[in-house]
Amino acid sequence: MTVTDEYLAHNTEYASTFQGPLPLPPSKHIAIVACMDARIDVYRVLGINEGEAHVIRNAGGVVTDDVIRSLAISQRLLGTQEIMLIHHTDCGMLTFTDDDFKRAIQDETGVKPHWAAESFQDDVEDVRQSLRRIETSPFVTKHVSLRGFVFDVATGRLNEVTP
Amino acid sequence: MTVTDEYLAHNTEYASTFQGPLPLPPSKHIAIVACMDARIDVYRVLGINEGEAHVIRNAGGVVTDDVIRSLAISQRLLGTQEIMLIHHTDCGMLTFTDDDFKRAIQDETGVKPHWAAESFQDDVEDVRQSLRRIETSPFVTKHVSLRGFVFDVATGRLNEVTP
Repeated sequence: MTVTDEYLAHNTEYASTFQGPLPLPPSKHIAIVACMDARIDVYRVLGINEGEAHVIRNAGGVVTDDVIRSLAISQRLLGTQEIMLIHHTDCGMLTFTDDDFKRAIQDETGVKPHWAAESFQDDVEDVRQSLRRIETSPFVTKHVSLRGFVFDVATGRLNEVTP
Repeated sequence: MTVTDEYLAHNTEYASTFQGPLPLPPSKHIAIVACMDARIDVYRVLGINEGEAHVIRNAGGVVTDDVIRSLAISQRLLGTQEIMLIHHTDCGMLTFTDDDFKRAIQDETGVKPHWAAESFQDDVEDVRQSLRRIETSPFVTKHVSLRGFVFDVATGRLNEVTP
């Protein structure tokens, strides 16, 4: 039995008490961008209820073109007006360099990725970098609040990063 | 008071009973790729506990280069071996076309996005498309299981898509 099967069995239980459907647009008009890290259960960390917030996640919680795409759709088509960015301590992105990662893939497969791996050396600095990528984007302009945080995996606390 | 402030107040509560830290690599060796939709609380839908699974989310749950990047890091650096893809019914990505969306941005800002918006016309077909993008990627090759689903926002149930 795979983990996928195990999760599907749980989904049957989940659906048995499910009450839906909720409306499509996020009721709290907010989008969260966070790292994919397994330890960050974004809904629990922030007390989000179903239907309230878009949740966008990737390796690092880095603002890439795909995050800009998602935020543009979130704001322009579904009316979100606030953005929270969440990186975290003890992040995997701190443990390698783009050059080494891409060289390892090239050595094994013969093909070098055409994308940046987006590793970083300092979580606070990278939150600032992600904030700036949004500030300079011509496509994500509808928010009234944009704030960045580092989640401490030892304490569960979000610490705000000054821009 | 913004929603961000409201969520931060909740985080103080969350941290007060937090027990951590957990290890960095996902203990169940699985990565979930899902749409950012506000109604999908991935941890609850699948019964995921903190620390078990990488969770990658964007507009549509579409497999883009950024998802390939995240999955490559997940598999090669943090040892995940299964992938679940989750699209859903009543998705915002079904409500527009790339051409119209990008034209509206260009008309308003003068700049046309250089990326695809990744809208789609059929959720099942787009899960298949995302499965194929992984199958043909030279960078995401370490999984022993890859399966795709459509989450029904009316019933809470995951319905598997045959490849």
